Amino acid sequence: SSHFDPTEQSHRRYNPLLGQWLLVSPHRSKRPWQGQQEAPEVEKRPAYDPTCYLCPGNSRVGGVQNPNYTGTFVFDNDFAALQATVPVGSVNVRGLLRAEAESGVARVICFSPRHDLTLPEMEVGAIRGVVDVWTAQYQELGARPDINYVQIFENKGSMMGASNPHPHGQIWAQRTVPDDPARETTHQLAYWSEHGRSLLTDYLAIELEEQTRLVYQNEHFVVLVPYWAVWPFETLLISRRHVQDLAQLTDDEKNALADALQQLTIRYDNLFQMSFPYSAGLHQRPTDGQAHESWHLHMHFYPPLLRSATVRKFMVGYELLANPQRDITPEVAAQRLRELPSVHYKKSQP
Amino acid sequence: SSHFDPTEQSHRRYNPLLGQWLLVSPHRSKRPWQGQQEAPEVEKRPAYDPTCYLCPGNSRVGGVQNPNYTGTFVFDNDFAALQATVPVGSVNVRGLLRAEAESGVARVICFSPRHDLTLPEMEVGAIRGVVDVWTAQYQELGARPDINYVQIFENKGSMMGASNPHPHGQIWAQRTVPDDPARETTHQLAYWSEHGRSLLTDYLAIELEEQTRLVYQNEHFVVLVPYWAVWPFETLLISRRHVQDLAQLTDDEKNALADALQQLTIRYDNLFQMSFPYSAGLHQRPTDGQAHESWHLHMHFYPPLLRSATVRKFMVGYELLANPQRDITPEVAAQRLRELPSVHYKKSQP
Ligand SMILES: O=P(O)(O)O[C@H]1O[C@H](CO)[C@@H](O)[C@H](O)[C@H]1O
Ligand SMILES: O=P(O)(O)O[C@H]1O[C@H](CO)[C@@H](O)[C@H](O)[C@H]1O
Repeated sequence: SSHFDPTEQSHRRYNPLLGQWLLVSPHRSKRPWQGQQEAPEVEKRPAYDPTCYLCPGNSRVGGVQNPNYTGTFVFDNDFAALQATVPVGSVNVRGLLRAEAESGVARVICFSPRHDLTLPEMEVGAIRGVVDVWTAQYQELGARPDINYVQIFENKGSMMGASNPHPHGQIWAQRTVPDDPARETTHQLAYWSEHGRSLLTDYLAIELEEQTRLVYQNEHFVVLVPYWAVWPFETLLISRRHVQDLAQLTDDEKNALADALQQLTIRYDNLFQMSFPYSAGLHQRPTDGQAHESWHLHMHFYPPLLRSATVRKFMVGYELLANPQRDITPEVAAQRLRELPSVHYKKSQP
Repeated sequence: SSHFDPTEQSHRRYNPLLGQWLLVSPHRSKRPWQGQQEAPEVEKRPAYDPTCYLCPGNSRVGGVQNPNYTGTFVFDNDFAALQATVPVGSVNVRGLLRAEAESGVARVICFSPRHDLTLPEMEVGAIRGVVDVWTAQYQELGARPDINYVQIFENKGSMMGASNPHPHGQIWAQRTVPDDPARETTHQLAYWSEHGRSLLTDYLAIELEEQTRLVYQNEHFVVLVPYWAVWPFETLLISRRHVQDLAQLTDDEKNALADALQQLTIRYDNLFQMSFPYSAGLHQRPTDGQAHESWHLHMHFYPPLLRSATVRKFMVGYELLANPQRDITPEVAAQRLRELPSVHYKKSQP
């Protein structure tokens, strides 16, 4: 045919939040696979594991003992990637070797005392507890004069580098704004200056019209596969109301966020009937004291699996040297996720 | 201490080729690891495998038969991510859903008829054959009016998504210039306009003075761990002479490139006494007909392993949401690689 058909033909898509391109090869999803298969993760874990350094009452490296916590539990990472005490300093050799001292804080957030749970298997009320601790941490760390950006994230599953299966996330908070949120700041501000509305407000309106990339929605949040999704089943969670951070959410909105998190992660687990690995994280306005009214709270989910519990998408070669590439289209991925049951497969089995 | 110490304290480094930042956490290399361990790859392969679709004389998907090639062998990828026949076209919904048809060619290059070899185990003369086929492909594809950029790369090892262990690389050549080479174009041009020398000429001069990040050098090429390396043992191969692409290299320089490739990959294999996985690729000037005199030929090696044959560095969570992070410093990595023997471990065993 002489018409460009994005459902079948190779094309590039533009990510307006980051200002980056993506190569899409829809015709390629049928290629056979002789490469590495992942070993499916061992599923059965005890509710309490005496050797786990995140379970209540257990000792961590260095001998600190965890309290007998019953909800969430936050502590400073024993092997923090950021140190609070680094003095100011920099390196600059003819503009080509450039470094800056970076100070900050790294914390671990246990989502539940139960070693055997993950977000999709937790009750909505317990997930709401996680939303509350994220909010409190963002506020507490963001208020510090030495912290200008707070990154809250979760690596779920050993395939995503999680060093322990106990349900937990992390916070890395630091003096400078890292690259991706800095790019999102630039692009959201440019859009705001031109249109007087947030980029994600207008983007969400288009998605609600087109409907093809929606996964789940409730009164206050929408989950969709973004038009520019890089990972096969990547999703973006957007607040309907234009707010800059978690601290601005009402009680109802926080409950709706907990519901959306539960519904999305249940669908993820149901996709391949396994504990679905991903890295996820909140993007909120920098805490540098500026208003950043153009910023629009959202959360990214980056899952590595492509075709089954054992076949992943590799971001290698071309992706590392040129730009990301995907096979299955965002529209096909969204449809698959949307049509999955809203009850966790473990609970719907007899 | 009140002095910033980049060998011990967290800091950020700037990548002047891409305009991106990296978080370095040198103090963190001692943290214990309870996470995923890779299964070391099965090492013993036959010289010829009747089930391999890349071995000489075998049939590929669709029934095409490979010739009985004796050196290198190039063919169009049976599952190409790029299609040559895509018509021009685009999508633009209020500036937020943007796509463009993308046409191009994807090819596979077998490096050797021997199923059991990899670059570090090949003779220099055979590696020179690979350099020659890269050069010829860059010239042939680059000359086409519908191809403005040629990406030559190799995914080595199943950990890097290689779908077949037979020694091979790929070429993806396309109408537009992808993100990373486009960024390198911008940053090299800005440097060139200001200084009248290529960015990598001046960078190489600093590295040859400081010596701390050098891995290997011969008369025409230098291999080093760049100051801004993201992956634990990432390296950058730079031509001493400022040329824009492979086609400008002399016969001596091509031999020196083959030698540098052999010496680098032997050290990689010797590091953990295993076939060392990586993605590697050449960056050359776009083939859009412009001179691009600021461009300086180089090659990136991105290996995923961190501490042993079974512990990898995960680019997840913080890295996907904020910016890349590393533990071991580039200086420590360079020293380790530099001090390894120049003879492949398999050949030095009795
Ligand atoms: O074409 P292959 O070798 O099957 O595929 C491999 O390389 C490609 C280019 O880097 C990647 O997009 C794939 O994810 C990877 O598995
Ligand atoms: O801190 P953890 O869970 O041990 O480490 C994990 O998350 C970090 C932040 O995304 C990554 O830098 C590590 O590569 C990963 O293994």
